[in-house]
Amino acid sequence: MQKHQAFAEYTEITPSVAIETARHGWRAKCLQRLIRLEMPVPRTVALPCDAVRMIAAGTMPDTERLAGLFGAAPLLAVRSSPANPDWGGPGTVLNVGMNAAKHIELGQSHGPAIADAIYLKFVQSYAIHVTRLDPDMFAADPSPTALAAALAAYEAEMDEEFPQSPARQLSEVLRSMARAWEGTTARLLRQAKGAPTDAALGLIVQEMVQMVGPGLAGFGTIQLVDAVTGSPQVTGRFKGQLPANRKAEETLYLVKDKRGASLEEAEPQVFADLQRHCAAARAKLREEMQIEFALENAALKVIDAVTVQRSSRAAVRIAVSLAKDGIISRDEALLRVEPRALSELLHYQVDPRGARDTFARGINASPGAASGRIVFSAADAQASAARGEPCILVRRETSPEDIRGMHAAVAVLTERGGITSHAAVIARGLGLPCIVGASDLKLNPRDKVMVAPDGRIFREGDMITVDGTNGEVLAGSPLMLEPALDEWFSTLLHWADNVRDIGVRANADTPDDARTARMFEAEGIGLCRTEHMFFDEDRLTVMREMIFADTAQDRRVALDRLLPMQRADFTALFDIMAGLPVCIRLFDPPLHEFLPHDRDGLRELAEALDKPLSDVTRRVEALSEFNPMLGMRGVRLGVTVPEIYEMQARAIFEATVEASRRGAQVVPEVMIPLVSAKREVELVKTRIDAIAAAVRNEQGCDFQYKLGVMVETPRAALIAGEIAQHASFLSFGTNDLTQMTYGLSRDDAGRFMSAYVNLGVYPEDPFHVLDHDGVGELLLIGCERARKNRSDLTLSVCGEHGGNPASIAFCRKAGVDYVSCSPFRVPVARLAAAHLALTDPK
Amino acid sequence: MQKHQAFAEYTEITPSVAIETARHGWRAKCLQRLIRLEMPVPRTVALPCDAVRMIAAGTMPDTERLAGLFGAAPLLAVRSSPANPDWGGPGTVLNVGMNAAKHIELGQSHGPAIADAIYLKFVQSYAIHVTRLDPDMFAADPSPTALAAALAAYEAEMDEEFPQSPARQLSEVLRSMARAWEGTTARLLRQAKGAPTDAALGLIVQEMVQMVGPGLAGFGTIQLVDAVTGSPQVTGRFKGQLPANRKAEETLYLVKDKRGASLEEAEPQVFADLQRHCAAARAKLREEMQIEFALENAALKVIDAVTVQRSSRAAVRIAVSLAKDGIISRDEALLRVEPRALSELLHYQVDPRGARDTFARGINASPGAASGRIVFSAADAQASAARGEPCILVRRETSPEDIRGMHAAVAVLTERGGITSHAAVIARGLGLPCIVGASDLKLNPRDKVMVAPDGRIFREGDMITVDGTNGEVLAGSPLMLEPALDEWFSTLLHWADNVRDIGVRANADTPDDARTARMFEAEGIGLCRTEHMFFDEDRLTVMREMIFADTAQDRRVALDRLLPMQRADFTALFDIMAGLPVCIRLFDPPLHEFLPHDRDGLRELAEALDKPLSDVTRRVEALSEFNPMLGMRGVRLGVTVPEIYEMQARAIFEATVEASRRGAQVVPEVMIPLVSAKREVELVKTRIDAIAAAVRNEQGCDFQYKLGVMVETPRAALIAGEIAQHASFLSFGTNDLTQMTYGLSRDDAGRFMSAYVNLGVYPEDPFHVLDHDGVGELLLIGCERARKNRSDLTLSVCGEHGGNPASIAFCRKAGVDYVSCSPFRVPVARLAAAHLALTDPK
Repeated sequence: MQKHQAFAEYTEITPSVAIETARHGWRAKCLQRLIRLEMPVPRTVALPCDAVRMIAAGTMPDTERLAGLFGAAPLLAVRSSPANPDWGGPGTVLNVGMNAAKHIELGQSHGPAIADAIYLKFVQSYAIHVTRLDPDMFAADPSPTALAAALAAYEAEMDEEFPQSPARQLSEVLRSMARAWEGTTARLLRQAKGAPTDAALGLIVQEMVQMVGPGLAGFGTIQLVDAVTGSPQVTGRFKGQLPANRKAEETLYLVKDKRGASLEEAEPQVFADLQRHCAAARAKLREEMQIEFALENAALKVIDAVTVQRSSRAAVRIAVSLAKDGIISRDEALLRVEPRALSELLHYQVDPRGARDTFARGINASPGAASGRIVFSAADAQASAARGEPCILVRRETSPEDIRGMHAAVAVLTERGGITSHAAVIARGLGLPCIVGASDLKLNPRDKVMVAPDGRIFREGDMITVDGTNGEVLAGSPLMLEPALDEWFSTLLHWADNVRDIGVRANADTPDDARTARMFEAEGIGLCRTEHMFFDEDRLTVMREMIFADTAQDRRVALDRLLPMQRADFTALFDIMAGLPVCIRLFDPPLHEFLPHDRDGLRELAEALDKPLSDVTRRVEALSEFNPMLGMRGVRLGVTVPEIYEMQARAIFEATVEASRRGAQVVPEVMIPLVSAKREVELVKTRIDAIAAAVRNEQGCDFQYKLGVMVETPRAALIAGEIAQHASFLSFGTNDLTQMTYGLSRDDAGRFMSAYVNLGVYPEDPFHVLDHDGVGELLLIGCERARKNRSDLTLSVCGEHGGNPASIAFCRKAGVDYVSCSPFRVPVARLAAAHLALTDPK
Repeated sequence: MQKHQAFAEYTEITPSVAIETARHGWRAKCLQRLIRLEMPVPRTVALPCDAVRMIAAGTMPDTERLAGLFGAAPLLAVRSSPANPDWGGPGTVLNVGMNAAKHIELGQSHGPAIADAIYLKFVQSYAIHVTRLDPDMFAADPSPTALAAALAAYEAEMDEEFPQSPARQLSEVLRSMARAWEGTTARLLRQAKGAPTDAALGLIVQEMVQMVGPGLAGFGTIQLVDAVTGSPQVTGRFKGQLPANRKAEETLYLVKDKRGASLEEAEPQVFADLQRHCAAARAKLREEMQIEFALENAALKVIDAVTVQRSSRAAVRIAVSLAKDGIISRDEALLRVEPRALSELLHYQVDPRGARDTFARGINASPGAASGRIVFSAADAQASAARGEPCILVRRETSPEDIRGMHAAVAVLTERGGITSHAAVIARGLGLPCIVGASDLKLNPRDKVMVAPDGRIFREGDMITVDGTNGEVLAGSPLMLEPALDEWFSTLLHWADNVRDIGVRANADTPDDARTARMFEAEGIGLCRTEHMFFDEDRLTVMREMIFADTAQDRRVALDRLLPMQRADFTALFDIMAGLPVCIRLFDPPLHEFLPHDRDGLRELAEALDKPLSDVTRRVEALSEFNPMLGMRGVRLGVTVPEIYEMQARAIFEATVEASRRGAQVVPEVMIPLVSAKREVELVKTRIDAIAAAVRNEQGCDFQYKLGVMVETPRAALIAGEIAQHASFLSFGTNDLTQMTYGLSRDDAGRFMSAYVNLGVYPEDPFHVLDHDGVGELLLIGCERARKNRSDLTLSVCGEHGGNPASIAFCRKAGVDYVSCSPFRVPVARLAAAHLALTDPK
C-alpha cells in the first residue's frame, strides 16, 4: 500500500492539478500551460516519471481504467515527455486503440482509403516499435492489399491475432516506450546532450482528434516567424481532407496563396485563432512556439507546442525581439544565443534549402562560403582577381609568399595543414572561407588538376564552392545566404558589451583588418604582426638588400628606405583605430622567409643584388634552418641585428607623433616576441627607450608608449615574474606556447591530429581549444607570478584561442584583462564573454 | 692607545708566535710551518691584514724600527700573503734597501756587473711599481750606462734623488702594495676566483740572501714530481754564480746532467737537504710542494714554498699517492681533483710543451685531439679509413647520413652548429674530438677546399689537427700526449663510487658504445637510441620499403625483415652489459630522415622500389616537415604507425629470452619518447604488454620488463603525476626539454648562442649547463608530481646535462636516482657525484 501511494499513477492535465517539469516532463508542463491559456487541447493524461520507471521495471498501471477515461472506443496518442526536449525520447505512437471495429467505422465516415491507411500505419508502427518485428515484413508503401498482408504477417510471426483491445495495445505501447528510454544507445545519446545519468521520462496519453462530421479535418503546424531569418511571417503546413473532396487526403497551403487552396481561406476563424494562440504562447511561454494542431469537423484542437526550430540568424532576431517586447530580459536574450553560432552570421552561407554536390571534405578552418574558379597559384589568383573573376586558391599548403594570392582569392583550399596552419590563420584573419587538410584530394599543381575521392577531375577554371563553415568542398555554385550584420546582431552585441567583464581586441595587421576590427567593435588591436608588411614586392627587394648587407651600417641604409613605408603603415592603423589601443609586435619571423628557395628566384636575386649566384646561394643556405620555429627569430634577431627593431621603433614613434597631431590620442604598445630571458627585454628596452627619446627631441613633441612582452615560450611563462619588472604588459601567444609545450608544430600536426583526437589521445585539438593541463597551467603560473611582482600589469591572450568561448572562460579565471582574436571572431568573443559574466559572476 | 693595541703591527715569524692564515695570509702560515720543520728560513716578519688595511688607509707602521730588525743596511724582499694563494696579490719586490752604498759594497765583493744589474733592477721595479712612472723611461735591457740613465730619469721625473734610506723605501713599497690590493681590477680578478668582497691581504718582509763569501750563490726551485705526469722525479731549476766564475751569473742544471754543471754535483749535501725538505713539506703540509731556495756562500736558505703546479693527470696521481701514503684521506683525495679535468685524461691531447700552429677556432664540442688528413664527405672518410689513413671529416654540419663517415674519421670539424648539434652529440658519444661552429672558416665542399681567416688555403688530403679540448684547429700534426687511464685514475674513481649517492649510467647505442660504457664502469645503459640501428645500408633499404608500404600488412612484411637484425642488436647489448640495466628508447625520429632528398637519391630509390619517380618524389615531399623537431616522431609514430613499436618490442623481448638463457639476468627497460599526453602511454603500453605476453607464450619462458616514459616536452613534465600511473620510470630528456622550454633548436642555436652568452642574455649555453629557472623548474615539478603519485618510481636524467657537474648537483637535489651521459663523460660524472656527496651530504 505504502508503495502505491508514493506516487499518482497518472493525472489528467487540467489548469489546477500539480504538473511539474521535473516529475512529468517538459511536454506535460507545456500542455498544461496551453490549457491554462484556454487553448482547445484534447483530453490529456500525464504519466509521471516514477510511473514510467515502474512500467519499465514491469509494474503496469491499470490501462483498462486509463483507456476508459477516453470513452468506450478511444483512439489515443502516446508521446514522450522528458525533463528537457533536447534529451530525445521514444517517438510518438499515434492511433492507439485502432482495431477492426474502428476500421469499419472510419471507412463508413471517411472512405475505405483513409480507413485502410490509418489502420495499416498503426499496425506497422506497433509491429515494428512495440513488438520489434522485422520492418522489411511491413512494406512502407500502402497498396490495396497492404493492410491484409500486414495483419497476416503479424499473426504469422506472433502466433496470435493483432491485438484488438485498446487497453492491451496501450499497455504494450507504454511498456515499449518506457523500456526504449533505458536502452544503451538512447542513454548515450542523451548524455552527450548533457542529460544526467538518472534522467527520467514522463509519458503523455492524449485523445486523438477523430475523423468525424462533415467539416474540414486534418493536421498542421503553425509559427509566427521565418525559421531562417527570424522575421515575422506566419509559416507552417497543413494536411487534411477538404469537405469537397472526401475521398483523399491532400496538402493545403496554410496561408492564402494563389497557387492553391489554403487553410486561411477555408477556415479564416480557425486561422485567426491559431495566430492568437501562437501570440499567447509566445508571451506566456516566453518563446517563439510552433503549435501543432488538428481540425475535427472544422473545430480547432491544439495538440502540442514546441519551440520554433531556427537558424543562427533567426535565433539572434527572435531573442532580441522577445527582449524588446519585454517578454524576456536582455540577459536572458544574451544567454539564448550560442556564441559560436554568431560566426555563421558574418559570412555568406550555402543556403540549407538548396542542393549540395559535395565532392571532398577537410578541416573547416575559417567559416563562410564562397564560389569561384579554381586557381593553383598565388600569381594566377592575382591575375584572376585583376580580370574581376572570383577565384578559389587551391594549394598543397600556403606560405608567406602566397599572401597576396590569398588576398586576391574568395576562398582557400589546401591539401595539408591543421586548424592553425598558415593558410588557416591568415584566412581567418582575412575573413576568407578556408578548408585545410583536405587530404583526400589528389593535387597536381604542375598539371593544374585535382582529383576528387570519387574520381571526378577538377581543372583550373572549374567552378567550385568552399564551405568553410562545415569543411565541405562543393562542385558548382549553390544558392547562398547573405551575411546578417543587421540591427538585431548589433543590438545583441551592445547588450553583451554592457555585461561582460573581460576585454576583446582584434588581431589586425593591415588597414583592411583594422577596419574589420572596428566594424566588429573590437576595443583595440591586441596583436599587429608587422612582418606581413614586408612581403609587398617593392619592400621585399629592400628587405633582401638588408639581409645581404655585410655591416650594420649597410643594414641601416636599407632599413632607412623601409622606414617611411613602415611609418605610413602605422599612421594608417592609428588613424583607423582613432585612439583605441594598438599593440604592435616587433619583427618576428626568421630572415630566410624573405628569401627565394628555388633556382629561378635565386638567379633573379643575384641579378638584383649584382652579386655572383654562388655567393647568394651560399648566403641563402647559411640562413636556412632545421627548425625555423625554434630558430633565429623574434627577439633573437632583435638582440643580434638590432637595426631592424630600431627602424620599427622609429616608425612607430614617428607615426604616433603624426597621428597625434591629427587629433587621436595615440599611446602605442610595443611588444617583443619570443622572449626566453629577462636580459633580452632589458637590451631591447634600452634601445627602444633611446629611440623614443630621440624622436621626442627631433619632433619637439612628447608622447607616451608602453613596452610589453609576448609570452610564447614555456620559459617566459615560468619567469614571468622577472620579466614583469621590465614590462607594462604581457600577452600570451598561446599558438606558439601550445606548440612548444606539446613539442608540436602547428604546420606539421595536421598529419596526425585527427587520428589523435579520434583515439582520444587529445580530447580536442589543442590549437583549437586551449589545453588546460599543460598550456593552461603555464598561463596560470605566468599570470600569477607577473601580477605578484607588478599588480598594475596588463595581461592578455593573443593566440587563436582568444576567439574560443571555452578558452575565454579559462583566460578570465586566470585574471587576463583582455583576449585578442581575429576580427571575424570578435563578435563570438564579445558574446561568449557576456555569457561568462552572466553564468559565473566574479 | 686602544686602537693601536687592537693589533700587532708586525710579528717576526718564529715557531711559537701566533700566525694564522686568516690574519696573516697563507704565505706567512706556510713559512711558519717551514720554520717549524727546522728549514733554514731567513728572518721573516709578517704584517697582518689589519695592518695592511691601515697602511692602505694612510697609517704607516714604524718602518725605521722594522727595517732595523734586519740590521743596519738590510736588503729585504716584500711578498704578498692573501688568505688563499689563488686570489693573487701584488707581485714580490726584491732588494728593498738597495742604494749607492750597497752598490759599492756589492761591486767590490761580486764585481760591478752584478752590482749594476741588481741596483738597476731595483730602481726599475721601484719606479714602475711604487712611484708609477712610465715603464718606457726605464729600458729593460741592461747596458753599461743603463743604471746611471735610470737614476737620472727618476730624478728628473720626481724632482728628488732616488731614495737612499731603506726605511723610506720600505714604507713606499708597503704602501704601494697595500693600495694595489684595493684596486678595482685586482678586486674583480680575485672575486672571479671566489674571493669574498672583503678579502684582506697580509704582507711578508723577509731578509734577502746576501751575495757574500766565496761559496756558491744563487736562487732556485725544486719539487719531487713531474708536473705533467705526476710521477716521482726531482725537477727544478737553479741560477747562480759558481765560485769558479765570479764575473757572471749562469744557469746550472739542478740534477746531475751530462750536458753541464749541476747543483747536485756542485753541492751534493745541499741537494740532499733540499730533497729532505721537500719530503718533509709533503708530509706535514699534506701536499706536493715546490720549494724556492737560495744559496748564500754555499749555505742553503729556504725562501718560500708553493703547491706544485700540475696537469690534470698529475693531479690525479698526486692526490691518490698522498692518500695511499696515508698523508691525506681518500675523501680529501677525491676533492683535490676537479671532475671536469678528468675528461682530458680520456683522450689524446696536444702536448702543451710543443709548438701550436692554430689557424681557426670553434666551439670545443667533444674533448681530445687527433691529427688526420682533411676529407669533405662521409664517403671520402670511409674510403680514407679503408686505406688505413687517419682522416678528419670537415662538413657544414652533419646529419644522420654522415654517421658512418664519422665512425671512419678520427675527428670532426663543422662550420655550423652548437654544443648539442648533431655532430657534437654523436662525436661525444663516439669519443671523437670535435669542433663545431667554426664559422670563421670558409668552406667550399664542392671544390674540396677551405680557407682560414688568415687566408691560408687547406685542401683535401692536407694534414690538420682538431683539438676538441679547447676548440682550436691546428695545421700539421703536433706532439701528442696519450690517454691516462692508469691505475691512479681507476683507483680514484673506485673511491668515488664508494661515496657517491646518485647513480651514473651511459648513453650507448651500439656494442662499441656499450663496451666503452663498461670500460668507464657505468652502472648500466640509461639511454639506447634505437634509430641509429636503421642507417646501415642493408637496413636502410628495408626501412624505406616499410615507409613506402601502403597498408599495415605491407609494413609488417618489411618490419619482419628488420626484426632479426634488431634482435641481434639487443642481444649483443645485453651480452656486453651482462645483467646491468639497459634502457631502450623506442624509435624516435621522423620517417623522412630515412629518405633521400637529392635528385640522384630519389632516382635510385624509385628504381629500388620499382615505382615511378613522380610517386616517390610526391611521397618524400608529403613526408617532409616544416619543423621536424616538433613533428610526426616519437610516440606519435608509435600511436599512428604501431607496427614499428610492435616489431621493436618483439625484438627486445626475444633478445631478453636469448640473453637470459645464456645466463645474464636481463630485465629490459622500454622507454617511450616525446610523450605529451597520458593516453599515448596507455595505448603503447597495451600493445607492448600484448607483445610481451605473446613472446612469453611462444618461447615458453617468463621474463620481466619495465615500461617508462621519456619526459621531453614541457607538458609531459607538467602532467608527470598522471603519466607516472602507467610508468615504472621517468627519464628526463633534458636536451629536447631545453629546446622546447626555450623555443630553441639546438641545431640552429649555434648562429647566435655565443653572442647571447657574451651579452649575458643567457649566463651559459643552456644545452651545456642545465637552466635552473626554466628547464630546472619543470624538472622539479615533474619529479615532485611523479613521486607523489608513485613513490617507487625510478627518476633519471638522460640528456647531455647528465655529464655536467653543476647539472648533476641540481638533479641530485631534485631527487633523481641516476644520470646518464655519453660514455666518455661517465668518469666526470662519477667523480662529480662523489664531490656532491662529500660537500653537501643528504
